[in-house]
Amino acid sequence: MATPTRIGLAGLAVMGQNLALNIAEKGFPISVYNRSTSKVDETVERAKKEGNLPLYGFHDPESFVLSIQKPRVIIILVKAGLPVDQTIKTLSAFMEKGDCIIDGGNEWYENTERREKEMAELGLLYLGMGVSGGEEGARNGPSMMPGGSFEAYKYIEDILLKVAAQVPDSGPCVTYIGEGGSGNFVKMVHNGIEYGDMQLIAEAYDVLRSVGKLSNDELHQVFSEWNKGELLSFLIEITADIFGVKDDKADGYLVDKVLDKTGMKGTGKWTVQQAAELSVAAPTIAASLDSRFLSGLKDERVEAAKVFESSGVSDIFVEQSVDKNQLIDDVRKALYASKICSYAQGMNLIRAKSVEKGWDLKLGELARIWKGGCIIRAIFLDRIKGAYDRNPDLANLLVDEEFAKEMVERQSAWRRVVCLAINSGISTPGMSSSLAYFDSYRRESLPANLVQAQRDYFGAHTYERIDVPGAFHTEWFKIAKQSKN
Amino acid sequence: MATPTRIGLAGLAVMGQNLALNIAEKGFPISVYNRSTSKVDETVERAKKEGNLPLYGFHDPESFVLSIQKPRVIIILVKAGLPVDQTIKTLSAFMEKGDCIIDGGNEWYENTERREKEMAELGLLYLGMGVSGGEEGARNGPSMMPGGSFEAYKYIEDILLKVAAQVPDSGPCVTYIGEGGSGNFVKMVHNGIEYGDMQLIAEAYDVLRSVGKLSNDELHQVFSEWNKGELLSFLIEITADIFGVKDDKADGYLVDKVLDKTGMKGTGKWTVQQAAELSVAAPTIAASLDSRFLSGLKDERVEAAKVFESSGVSDIFVEQSVDKNQLIDDVRKALYASKICSYAQGMNLIRAKSVEKGWDLKLGELARIWKGGCIIRAIFLDRIKGAYDRNPDLANLLVDEEFAKEMVERQSAWRRVVCLAINSGISTPGMSSSLAYFDSYRRESLPANLVQAQRDYFGAHTYERIDVPGAFHTEWFKIAKQSKN
Repeated sequence: MATPTRIGLAGLAVMGQNLALNIAEKGFPISVYNRSTSKVDETVERAKKEGNLPLYGFHDPESFVLSIQKPRVIIILVKAGLPVDQTIKTLSAFMEKGDCIIDGGNEWYENTERREKEMAELGLLYLGMGVSGGEEGARNGPSMMPGGSFEAYKYIEDILLKVAAQVPDSGPCVTYIGEGGSGNFVKMVHNGIEYGDMQLIAEAYDVLRSVGKLSNDELHQVFSEWNKGELLSFLIEITADIFGVKDDKADGYLVDKVLDKTGMKGTGKWTVQQAAELSVAAPTIAASLDSRFLSGLKDERVEAAKVFESSGVSDIFVEQSVDKNQLIDDVRKALYASKICSYAQGMNLIRAKSVEKGWDLKLGELARIWKGGCIIRAIFLDRIKGAYDRNPDLANLLVDEEFAKEMVERQSAWRRVVCLAINSGISTPGMSSSLAYFDSYRRESLPANLVQAQRDYFGAHTYERIDVPGAFHTEWFKIAKQSKN
Repeated sequence: MATPTRIGLAGLAVMGQNLALNIAEKGFPISVYNRSTSKVDETVERAKKEGNLPLYGFHDPESFVLSIQKPRVIIILVKAGLPVDQTIKTLSAFMEKGDCIIDGGNEWYENTERREKEMAELGLLYLGMGVSGGEEGARNGPSMMPGGSFEAYKYIEDILLKVAAQVPDSGPCVTYIGEGGSGNFVKMVHNGIEYGDMQLIAEAYDVLRSVGKLSNDELHQVFSEWNKGELLSFLIEITADIFGVKDDKADGYLVDKVLDKTGMKGTGKWTVQQAAELSVAAPTIAASLDSRFLSGLKDERVEAAKVFESSGVSDIFVEQSVDKNQLIDDVRKALYASKICSYAQGMNLIRAKSVEKGWDLKLGELARIWKGGCIIRAIFLDRIKGAYDRNPDLANLLVDEEFAKEMVERQSAWRRVVCLAINSGISTPGMSSSLAYFDSYRRESLPANLVQAQRDYFGAHTYERIDVPGAFHTEWFKIAKQSKN
């Protein structure tokens, strides 16, 4: 290799391999490096097989770094946390002023901000770039959320624009997100929303299966049908696929053999913690996280089921007889309405952080770059983009005129589904959290007056009045005691 | 003052004043200090008026510290965070090896652990002690949760035992909690549970008021009645009181004039963040926090109500006709069942932290010391203590035989109330989160199999099977594609 490559990529687990191959395929010569060298050879081998792509492997960090044209740009895709720091240390030893490192992992945004500062002291630029799309997206076009040095973004904008998923009418699924850790933060909330979507789909499945008694064949049909309408999305599509997969070890369908324990990797947890930190209600996302926690307690649940069965309460509390077609239609509407609430929560969380940090994030642009490549890609994001195009200062997606209309049209079905689940004894924590969110947000007067009165009663925290401005304190105890005597 | 006092207290806002007077009243001569000296004089004045109590005021930190008998013990009650550090710095300058500082504020437990270490380097002992009971409790007997140095606890155990609330048959509401920041952590979760209780009561109020059309007089009667049975507690008692208080500025009842915006001070937020950190589902407590957040968006809610009213959706979605007595009975049961779930979440959060930190906390003892003095004091805590007495390793309060029986007896009423609220268009986020928690926890098979299948589909995260041990990965996409062709 005589001429330097355009870019480098370090960290060749499957995401890194695929992204490197994607970049090479788009015509950008790329150097690749991994600490365990077998991964390097594997990637080089794949590049040959997948069309003699301009990808060059290196077994040592120095020759890897030096093989890249200046100013050098290196994407790293290693585990978040310490491995990122170690990789930066290894590579930056050979890098020069003006070079740039891009962390493509699911990193905690504050780590990115710390590293950006440390790098700046060495004269190096830094980006934290969320990459969504899983293995397949990385290979064929992910959604990418780069945040940090705008100068660094500009160096590689041409590459990112080609590597990203391309969506007709809305362009490549990448944009400069904003300063500091904004790219990581947006990716984190994207993942929180993804948790919400997956949980809501699981609840739709649960109601259709447990109450509606739909077979996997029917579920496959229903989700395939749903994927032609307002719910059209990657997650609905793969759900339809899943119901069609037969077990290769035994009779029946594979989904029925999968243990009901969901794993997780941290971004959902961070989303919930940040929502609390920023005083943003995100109950649907929180319910999704809690559902994963409870799914993990399989042994406890088996024991609890026994305890309650012995009291005459079985898994399904009461068998409901339902009109299957009506139920399918209702569940579709409930799923859609619940999803709107979940996205409203995520978007408001992003805005709250943007305000706090002065990032000036464009919510409509985020909806646009999520339209392709990423796990939550969906036709529905067009409507979200439209809502923020109509009003960039929209307080909440729910009050956008189009979404409001959609909520109103679906709310009766939504309420039917949640009550049906409750009366059947199955839980729809995500759907019911969304519904409670909707009913709280659209309500002029909540019973919070009582809570504030209680706080003033026992802690003299004072309260405001609906009729007179100011802060008031009342000696509730004394007055109540007097009226008792 | 010739003889040294037994103990000192610095920070004379109302909680500090009241706790100092309480200590003096129990016969322990106390020195008091505050940075702004007017508070010192105020406290001294009160000590005279309230029975010539042995309380001595000091205007400078040195004479304050030196007035206390060795080894000196000083309780500080200042705002959490920096003011605690500043007060420690001021006082420790005059303290000697073996002396002890006790922080009685709502402090983040990690701050206490940091300070305990810093104090140890100076040869000083340290306790972080949660104090609950508000102003009234501080004066007449709070519930206290001291954690940190056991040696320091022993120094002042005699004082704490007398100062604490005294509950017949179960003793003073104080015990040594455990090492490090355990006292603060337990107090934090106590406050999270308090958030849950207050929210659940507010929802009960909302259903009775909005759906049942109960007047404040009737609400006063209902809550007074409830306070004679299984719900007997401080918060139910003060709620009954609140409904009896007339407005002194205008006609009608004061509660109707209180603005529906709830304030908060941080411990609820921490509880939710810690639950996420420790993988403990705490949806009822989270719903309470979210309800406070949404209550704060008063202006947005007023606007949203207008948007939806213009679409024909009014504040109350559908007027329901109900049997008032049946409704009151149902709501009482729903409130009680929801409360059990909330306490189960809080207790499991404490246990998870205890395991992580090796604190070896005794959950039954915590229920005991919450029986008096504190905001969540309730007869119901006897049952919790009983449950942990029967089985200290109880996985969840819900599966204790007595609680399980109580849940079974109440679940039909509970489901009726939540569905009634949903069909009326009002939200009961706490009650419905509790119900979803119950229905998830007691369910052998959740739809988490689908979520895990999705994760394996797009991220190769693997899954377990219900029939064969091991981790499996399936090429869902390929198989689904094949079956389509």
